[in-house]
Amino acid sequence: MTIDNTPRALVAISMGDPAGIGPETIVRAAASGFGGPCVVLGDVGVLRRAAGQCALQLPVTQLESAHDAWQAPPGSLAVWQPPGLGVGLAALPMGRVDARAGAAAACCIEAGARLALDGKVAALVTAPIHKEALAAAGVRHPGHTEMLQAAAGGAPVRMMLANDELRVVLVTIHVALRRAIELLDFDGVLQTLRIAHRAAAAWGSTSPRIAVAGLNPHAGEGGLFGDEELRFIGPAVLAARAEGIDAHGPFAPDTVFMRARHAPGHPGEFDLVVAMTHDHGLIPVKYLGVEHGVNVTLGLPFVRTSPDHGTAFDIAGLGRADPSSLRAALAMARRLATSAHRD
Amino acid sequence: MTIDNTPRALVAISMGDPAGIGPETIVRAAASGFGGPCVVLGDVGVLRRAAGQCALQLPVTQLESAHDAWQAPPGSLAVWQPPGLGVGLAALPMGRVDARAGAAAACCIEAGARLALDGKVAALVTAPIHKEALAAAGVRHPGHTEMLQAAAGGAPVRMMLANDELRVVLVTIHVALRRAIELLDFDGVLQTLRIAHRAAAAWGSTSPRIAVAGLNPHAGEGGLFGDEELRFIGPAVLAARAEGIDAHGPFAPDTVFMRARHAPGHPGEFDLVVAMTHDHGLIPVKYLGVEHGVNVTLGLPFVRTSPDHGTAFDIAGLGRADPSSLRAALAMARRLATSAHRD
Repeated sequence: MTIDNTPRALVAISMGDPAGIGPETIVRAAASGFGGPCVVLGDVGVLRRAAGQCALQLPVTQLESAHDAWQAPPGSLAVWQPPGLGVGLAALPMGRVDARAGAAAACCIEAGARLALDGKVAALVTAPIHKEALAAAGVRHPGHTEMLQAAAGGAPVRMMLANDELRVVLVTIHVALRRAIELLDFDGVLQTLRIAHRAAAAWGSTSPRIAVAGLNPHAGEGGLFGDEELRFIGPAVLAARAEGIDAHGPFAPDTVFMRARHAPGHPGEFDLVVAMTHDHGLIPVKYLGVEHGVNVTLGLPFVRTSPDHGTAFDIAGLGRADPSSLRAALAMARRLATSAHRD
Repeated sequence: MTIDNTPRALVAISMGDPAGIGPETIVRAAASGFGGPCVVLGDVGVLRRAAGQCALQLPVTQLESAHDAWQAPPGSLAVWQPPGLGVGLAALPMGRVDARAGAAAACCIEAGARLALDGKVAALVTAPIHKEALAAAGVRHPGHTEMLQAAAGGAPVRMMLANDELRVVLVTIHVALRRAIELLDFDGVLQTLRIAHRAAAAWGSTSPRIAVAGLNPHAGEGGLFGDEELRFIGPAVLAARAEGIDAHGPFAPDTVFMRARHAPGHPGEFDLVVAMTHDHGLIPVKYLGVEHGVNVTLGLPFVRTSPDHGTAFDIAGLGRADPSSLRAALAMARRLATSAHRD
């Protein structure tokens, strides 16, 4: 076995909102080893403050460029401050919505996207941002997924949440539920099925069994409780099948996730579930805890994952943030980047 | 200890759709003991057929009236055929939507509601019906909850789903998701909180901690993704608190169920969760399996529970139906009826 020392194996981590738990999860994960070379895109002061909050003696090395991560002393946190990051970030109060924090978080995400698009890092892992801070900073995208999509030129992307039991891909995400229903159509469902099908190759599944959850109670119960299943969800499943995608459904939302769940003694019937709305999909993925959940953006020209939790302003700065989900996101990013490299 | 031999302790079980797994779950639960006196409201032929499908030597006793259940031979299944049940039901094919099956199921539910309203049974447990069969039979209510509400004179009721980990009370149920959003308002949320608060006394919780799940992703993220939380869900929570109800939220739908979950090593933060839509609430209750879930109708003048699964037409007649959820529904009905009796 040889160590892969090419730039492809370097993973970038954006620090997230400096007022949230992102920096704490980064320094805690770093203290026990990232599992491979990483460059943190963020503010040196914020990360030193986070190490202090977590009572960690973690040296922080400021890099001249992201690629200098290879030269950082072993055991130190390699941090690159992207141009335009802003100053005085370590003085921002913890746990508060602040436009300066939102702007800094956005700056790191954009820098990470550029590094990934240029092939200078193998994958981008993003620590959590606060959507109100992002909006306060004037960023016109509501979240990571939409920002990265724009950075990549607008390619159609989808959000996947995955843990050891369940993989869920969402047709709609950060919009009001009322608006999500208006946005749903045949093309959106079919495109989600195509993106999910293609992406599954990265984790070694060339013909994934995909279940489609309906929108309405009991998947509309034959048209009694809504007709979206009859009008376009069912037809999109049939169209996907005609393209060779192993799609099934639409099924009743309240039981399809249970059916797809992979657990000891309970082999799931499906490899992933496509959900019409943010919460139909995320409620089951998060139900057993967010520690091991990972958010993966499918359809981008690079690998991007993130932990399955938010900024947790209520505990930010207390040194109690759990780095498990960030560790899972890093491990998933390396696995997917390696697969992509093999293709 | 003395045996309570009053009519209050008799539980009625409606057979459900004869083409579904209801009758099989009843005979399988009966064969291992119902845990107390029961009268089955259904067709003798259908229940004998179910015993045969399950390869059970279970004697079936046809009663003259529901109360004669006390005189049925020990170890036999006591069945009362309500007037107007229909004939030839045991000849209906398994696993098919049939108006005659829907009409028979409705007849048994109505008979059960009358017995409960008249105090002739302590509780009603309903085996699953098929909503399309019910509609084909011309029943104008989409499901059990609405039928029982009408039988009880239209009192406001709510559906609760409960298992060992989680109790969820729903504001809207069997309507298209688009319509559910239109139906939601301040009064509906506040009334749900009042009904849930009052009902909790029956399981010994006089001041339950109630979490309210929002409607939109991230509970609207401060108005960015929908305004129902700001317009009426939040105000309804405040109004409930002013009445002394320990209500909290609205919280992000994707994490509130995880937070409320009671499991070993994970004490839930709340005693129950109020969900705006059918699937926000039922996805987490069903995620770990429907075997132990129980459906309870809150707000009726009698106790009503049912198993947390449907007619399962795909396996109906094969003798494989799992009676666990029916057993749990019976146990819950007896527990709630005993508490109600004590009040």
